[in-house]
Amino acid sequence: MPYVNIKITREGATAEQKAQLIKGVTDLLRDILGKNPATTVVVIDEVDTDNWGIGGETVSVLRAR
Amino acid sequence: MPYVNIKITREGATAEQKAQLIKGVTDLLRDILGKNPATTVVVIDEVDTDNWGIGGETVSVLRAR
Amino acid sequence: MPYVNIKITREGATAEQKAQLIKGVTDLLRDILGKNPATTVVVIDEVDTDNWGIGGETVSVLRAR
Amino acid sequence: MPYVNIKITREGATAEQKAQLIKGVTDLLRDILGKNPATTVVVIDEVDTDNWGIGGETVSVLRAR
Amino acid sequence: MPYVNIKITREGATAEQKAQLIKGVTDLLRDILGKNPATTVVVIDEVDTDNWGIGGETVSVLRAR
Amino acid sequence: MPYVNIKITREGATAEQKAQLIKGVTDLLRDILGKNPATTVVVIDEVDTDNWGIGGETVSVLRAR
Repeated sequence: MPYVNIKITREGATAEQKAQLIKGVTDLLRDILGKNPATTVVVIDEVDTDNWGIGGETVSVLRAR
Repeated sequence: MPYVNIKITREGATAEQKAQLIKGVTDLLRDILGKNPATTVVVIDEVDTDNWGIGGETVSVLRAR
Repeated sequence: MPYVNIKITREGATAEQKAQLIKGVTDLLRDILGKNPATTVVVIDEVDTDNWGIGGETVSVLRAR
Repeated sequence: MPYVNIKITREGATAEQKAQLIKGVTDLLRDILGKNPATTVVVIDEVDTDNWGIGGETVSVLRAR
Repeated sequence: MPYVNIKITREGATAEQKAQLIKGVTDLLRDILGKNPATTVVVIDEVDTDNWGIGGETVSVLRAR
Repeated sequence: MPYVNIKITREGATAEQKAQLIKGVTDLLRDILGKNPATTVVVIDEVDTDNWGIGGETVSVLRAR
């Protein structure tokens, strides 16, 4: 029944990588907390680098440096 | 003053359906908890099926089966 | 499969009211979008009035006025 | 180490305005709570006006009035 | 730089289990997407069973059955 | 109409500091994007240090070092 939200910058994650991430997180919740995979929901948000800030700057600016 | 976030897969919900959902949730909060509709905010996120996992698999994979 | 997060101020909502809200939102998603209730997740967060702001003020201050 | 999520309607915020917002919020957290800017994350979500409701109506409908 | 939010029902997860979960998710993001662990943030929310609904019912009701 | 969610570790932020943060963020959204303070919502979540991870470790462990 857990719900997991993963936010990453939109920088080319493939469908295969996202599927691996969903599988991996679902397995962790089963192995560590005994959570039922059938009702474990994982949602990945990919965020434009203009919209993600760290250290007071956007990732767009950090990547361009 | 409530804030509601609804996450669904991006699979063709129409503007009309989303408007009905917003109206319905706002009414529920007024009817059950007495919340003021004027400051009730509802945000709908539509998520690509590659980015939504349940049971350890993406919805893209589930839909293709 | 939808995921809904409802944030309200912590001001005495009862278990019965929260159960009605969960039922109501789940029914709306089935009726409007055809979503399967069995995998519809609704999470309610109750937030202290010191931690909720609207109009630049906390709800604690608004309520005390 | 704080995490801040800002949701606004998608109505033309520029990269420069979003960068100012990220800088401003990061500075506030340093000035008021002493939080380290280096690990302060700010994520901005821009939401379609069809998907944002207030007062039981979508912003698309409100803007068209 | 990823941000991960894990929501589970408050049903006795230990500090050790939560630490394992944080370590596991951080490792997955490094191994699958090459994300830097130093700036990977994981936040776990434990939610009262009265406040978590699935299938239109609260987990409190499901557990009592 | 913006919605802002600020997550910080629960380490003694005062009601006064949280009020300043709410005021500050609301002002930023008005000054930079012209958003109406009357419908700007800010919600602060304070998270136990056992439930917050960075660099693959909980803040509880980092603070104890």
